[in-house]
This record gives sequence, structure tokens and C-alpha cells, in this order.
Amino acid sequence: MGADQRIVLLTDFGLRDSYVGVIKGVIAQITPKITTIDLTHQVAPQDIGAARFILLSAVNYFPKQTIFVVVVDPGVGGSRRSIALIWQDYYLIAPDNGVLSGLLDCAPGQEARELTNRNYWRVPQPSFTFQGRDIFAPAAAHLAQGLPFEQLGDRIPLASLVRLSLPELEIKPQGIVGSIQYLDHFGNGITTIPRSQIADKNWICRVGETRIVAGNTYSDVEAGVAIALIGSEGWVEIAVNGGSAQARLNLKFGDPIELLWQ
Amino acid sequence: MGADQRIVLLTDFGLRDSYVGVIKGVIAQITPKITTIDLTHQVAPQDIGAARFILLSAVNYFPKQTIFVVVVDPGVGGSRRSIALIWQDYYLIAPDNGVLSGLLDCAPGQEARELTNRNYWRVPQPSFTFQGRDIFAPAAAHLAQGLPFEQLGDRIPLASLVRLSLPELEIKPQGIVGSIQYLDHFGNGITTIPRSQIADKNWICRVGETRIVAGNTYSDVEAGVAIALIGSEGWVEIAVNGGSAQARLNLKFGDPIELLWQ
Amino acid sequence: MGADQRIVLLTDFGLRDSYVGVIKGVIAQITPKITTIDLTHQVAPQDIGAARFILLSAVNYFPKQTIFVVVVDPGVGGSRRSIALIWQDYYLIAPDNGVLSGLLDCAPGQEARELTNRNYWRVPQPSFTFQGRDIFAPAAAHLAQGLPFEQLGDRIPLASLVRLSLPELEIKPQGIVGSIQYLDHFGNGITTIPRSQIADKNWICRVGETRIVAGNTYSDVEAGVAIALIGSEGWVEIAVNGGSAQARLNLKFGDPIELLWQ
Repeated sequence: MGADQRIVLLTDFGLRDSYVGVIKGVIAQITPKITTIDLTHQVAPQDIGAARFILLSAVNYFPKQTIFVVVVDPGVGGSRRSIALIWQDYYLIAPDNGVLSGLLDCAPGQEARELTNRNYWRVPQPSFTFQGRDIFAPAAAHLAQGLPFEQLGDRIPLASLVRLSLPELEIKPQGIVGSIQYLDHFGNGITTIPRSQIADKNWICRVGETRIVAGNTYSDVEAGVAIALIGSEGWVEIAVNGGSAQARLNLKFGDPIELLWQ
Repeated sequence: MGADQRIVLLTDFGLRDSYVGVIKGVIAQITPKITTIDLTHQVAPQDIGAARFILLSAVNYFPKQTIFVVVVDPGVGGSRRSIALIWQDYYLIAPDNGVLSGLLDCAPGQEARELTNRNYWRVPQPSFTFQGRDIFAPAAAHLAQGLPFEQLGDRIPLASLVRLSLPELEIKPQGIVGSIQYLDHFGNGITTIPRSQIADKNWICRVGETRIVAGNTYSDVEAGVAIALIGSEGWVEIAVNGGSAQARLNLKFGDPIELLWQ
Repeated sequence: MGADQRIVLLTDFGLRDSYVGVIKGVIAQITPKITTIDLTHQVAPQDIGAARFILLSAVNYFPKQTIFVVVVDPGVGGSRRSIALIWQDYYLIAPDNGVLSGLLDCAPGQEARELTNRNYWRVPQPSFTFQGRDIFAPAAAHLAQGLPFEQLGDRIPLASLVRLSLPELEIKPQGIVGSIQYLDHFGNGITTIPRSQIADKNWICRVGETRIVAGNTYSDVEAGVAIALIGSEGWVEIAVNGGSAQARLNLKFGDPIELLWQ
């Protein structure tokens, strides 16, 4: 790979401790010129579902060949596999716990490997608790440096990868029922309902007993008023202009959200 | 522009979601070798005044030609303009909502453009809610790659840019009254009173009924004691040695602060 | 030094203000091509002990010659010295307040200098309150650019550097008593007891009246159960699988932790 290669990091390490810095140090020891980019390190501890959504929301905005390292890994040191995946010409290094399943729901993977080749671990006896440092980051760094993908370890069937699935949409004559799949920093509630389900219909949104008008952008309503719109990733999103829909409507992950055709 | 060019990001996106990473991905898709630097992404949501102050406090410490992208943008998708400004040989890409007015209060801009040239948007139909990704970041990336500034869009009068102004200082015979314009992470309260107003006078500071001694640095007073000093950006600042002036004195944005000549 | 050089930043600046960005700007003004890496900026304000531990936990994972800038500096502008240290072929720039003493407890330093050479300060009259910007960052940037170490200022005796020491371990026939030296983002409590004290003995851990089983990794116990293990840096660590040991056991810095041989 070329000098333009980069490694993108997605973890639940937070930013208080040495863990993120150590990952970057390990990468620099193997391949000093590579750029690392923080996708986020603020995933709630061990929240695989949030990591799945964040990864899905970001990958396609990066150049092809970008290498993503995902370390949201409640099963670290246990029996879950450490894997590498090629997907749409991107590279992903992660625990096999479902964090990649948002991508795999969109398009099939090209090839998956288990990270069994100890030549590309940092040390022969990796830590039981920090495999991001000892297995994932080194794999990414070697890949960035030109290691052929198949050297990382044994090929595994794509169908064997752990999948997390979202609750299915419920399609009714008068509308559609989905749920909240992610709550962002602004308190926007991103639902599981994609733009394609709406097409050119007119609609409003119902959250519990509250009916919410549909619009294009936050400022289509007065400050402090709730609005439903198609968010930047193409999902129906509940927001409050200048405020937090999460706080206003007491939104939680998994809450049902109904669209009603008008 | 040369290989030393960099893009500095200032947003209210927080660090929990994919938004900052997506901005960096979009930049890398256009110009893979450019370095991005995070000024901060922790501006309180939609706090244009804080963004104004942070930008003003930082720009001059970067090399000339540095490109700043500011996305604190409560009016995204509405009628506010998306603009580019050359100021003191720096480049700024931002919504036209006053975030640049701290700079413009210090020195005139050189040239402003509205980002009307869709050739340099990420997609012809940008998101209504994430123009940082679809309009601002691409403009910055193309500029970093050598696009002539005038290609970004139509020239607009510098005098037409939205300005936020600080409350004026009140000059009295016995002193001067300003206000708190920013509260930092340490709980230091930065006022609107510049060093130039003090010159070589002796002074103390009054906050409500509390009188605070003036000094040079935090450790000029005992631990836990309040002190007023000239902060690192040249503004009178209220601090507590080893503590938080914000908590101790219950400081809030806009609170009046009085200096008394001694 | 070569093009692969990097500067690693460790501060208590937080990520809300302009301070970290300004440090990076100052470095870019002096040496535009250098990469900066954030170790963390979330050290609790003025917590020298936490900075000591984070630095100790990270340095050895970076390539030799890496330059570390530590700005956790309650005594800024006062009489404490600003120093540079070569340690195990790494470079460290810091206030002389004990933040480097974790490293010095492990191995002797090679050479120390006080940053007395004003030619390598940003300005002849540095700020009393932001010497990270005016003294530390410029020193690191000049060093990255090839300045010989001895140019930074006067040589000072290694034995004169301020040291912070951890409370000593208490070795008993039936076990060993240490204490909590750091609590991380996950709520894991890292003790002062190193792996070498355990060797191949069987042990359990006692925290107050609670007895905690020893294991290898978090998932060796059921979700929600406490476990003691050897953490990734080789210290005995108290954790809760899928939870926070800090919250569960009300752990605080300095709390005594006892190991009992079985």
C-alpha cells in the first residue's frame, strides 16, 4: 500500500487513560509514517451496538484501502475470535462480536481471516485484557506497511462471522414502525427507518402520544420545537431545533417510532 | 499550496459520534496527504460565542496559509450563507453566523466568498443537516490541494458578514467594568478587559462583593485563594490557585467584572 | 532527527478550550512536518500522580527518539524548573514536579537540562500561565527539527529532579499489601503490586471485607462479578466483568489492597 494509507481507530477506551496513545505508539513502532485518525474513542464501554452504527456511518466516507481498527471488545481474552475483513475494498480489524455486522448487512464481505499468525502479534504471549495493543493494532500496522492480507491468519467463512441484527421494521397500511438505533451527542434520535421506505409519501412521526411534524432541517421549526427529518445518513431522525430530542422526548435505544402516511 | 498545508477543525460535534471522523474521511478522499488538527470539537452545542472566542485565541499561533473549518452552525440547512474568508493570510471556512467576528474585530478581512460553486461540494444535493461534511470540509480540502480561492464561489462584501459584538467596556475614573466572555476547562473566567486598558496602573478586581488581589500567576497566592491576572491571551482573568474560579465565585458568561485602580 | 520523528502530548488541558490546538499550532510554526500524537489531555486538573502513571504506562510503546511533552503543571510561572530529560533514548519535556518520576523509578535518566536557553522559547517574555505554549512546545519542536539536546539549556544533576514515590509494598508471610495507584476509564483499579511479586503463587485479593477471585481476563467470571488479574502493564488490577470496579467497590486512589497466598 502507498504512502497515503491511514489507520482509523474506533474504541471504547475513552480519552483519559494511556490506552489510545499506546495503540498509536505500537503502530508507530511498526510503521512510523502512517497516519492514524480517531473515529471515536467515546463509545460507551462495551456498547457493541453503538460501535456497529458508528462504523456503518463512517466507513464509506474514507478512501478505499483505509484500515479500520475496532476495539469494543467485552469478550477480550475469552473465546471470541480476532478477525480481519475486506469489505468493499476497505480493511477492518476487530473482535468477532458483531461490530462489523452493520457493514455486512449492506454488502457482502470479500474475505475474512482470523488473526492467528503470531508473527504479526506484538509479542508471542499477548495480554489477556489489551489485545487492541498486542493483536489488533499490530495487524493493522503490518497491513498498512504492505503485508499481504492472507498472511494475517487462517481464512474463515464469511457466513461464520457474528451478526447483530436490528429489530425488523413493521410495515402497515397506514405507516411503518421502526425503533431508535442510536442517540447522538446533540440528543438526536436516529431510527431504523431508511429514506427508501418513505419515497415521495407525505408523513408525520409518532413517538408515544406525541405527533411530530416532518421537515427538511432543524430550522424548519421554531427553536425548541421537535421535528422529524431524513438525517445525513439517510435514516429518519427525531430532533429538536436548538435542543435535545433525547431529553425532551425521553428517547432511549430501542424505543418504537411510528411513521404515519398523511 | 505546499505539502506543509494543514486543516484545523473547530466544531460542536463532540467526540462520541462519527461526525468528526467523517469530516476527516471526506478530506482524505479529496486530498489524502493533508494533515488535520483538532482545535476542539467540544464547543457547547450551537454556542457561537464560545466558538468565536476559541478561534480568536488560536488562529495566530498557526502558520500562515493554515485552513480553518468552523462548524458551529445552528442555522444549518436554512438561509444563512456558507462562506470562505481570507484574513491575515489565513483561510477560514464557516457558516456566516458571527463565528468569525472575533477575528474581524481585530483586523479587516482580505476577501470573502460564498461557497456557491457546486463543483466543490461533495455532492450536488448536500444534506440539509450536515453541511460540514458536504460543503465546508470539501471546500477546505480543495483549497488545501491548490484550488484558487476565487473558485469557491461568488465574492461577497466583507461588510456584509454577520458580526457578534461583545458588550462595550465601561470606563470610569476609578476603574473599568467589563464582563466574563469565556469560562475555560480549569474554571478560569476570561474577561473582556484587555491588558492595554491597565498599562502600568495598580489594580484589584471586584466580582460582586468579593475583592480579588491582582498578581502574575496562579501560585502568587496560596492554594485555594482567588487571584486576578493577565491571562495568556492578554485578557484579565479570574482564577483560583489549584481550584476553579467558576465554581468558587459562581461565574457565568456575561457576569460584570470591575477593575479598581489602587 | 529524521522525518519519522513525532511529538506526543500529555496534559490536563481538557479538550474544550483552544489550549491543545495552540500547542499544535506553535509546533507547526517551528516544524511544519512533524506529527503530534495526543497521549491524553484528560488528566484531572493538576493531578501529577495520574500524569506520572499514564506516562509510565505509555512511553515504552513508542519508537525510540520520540519526544514527549508533559504539561500538568500546577506550579506554572512559579519557581519550579522547566526541564528536558533523555531517558532510555526517549526525550521528555516537562515541569520538574515529579511527573517523570515513574520513569526514573524504572531506569536512570541519561541527561537532564533546564530549559534556560531563551533562544528556543517562543518569545523572550513567556506567559506566566501558559508555558506549555511558550517554553515546552517550542523546546520539543526545535528538538524535533534537529536542535542538539545540549542547546536547550544548562545541564542539571539527574539526582536533583523532583521525585514522587508510591507508598511501599508491605510484604507479609501470608501475602502482600499494596494500594490503588490509578483508576481508569472503565473503572478498573490498578494497584501498586507488580506481577513479579506473585510469580507462580496462587492468590486471592481482599478489598476491605470483600474477597475477590484471581483470574486471567474479565470474562473468566460471570457478567457483573469482580475479578483480580494481572493487567496489561503488569500490575495487579481489580475489575468487574462488564462493569466498574471503582463504582462497585467504591475504590479510591490510595486504598489498601491485600493479596493473600492460597
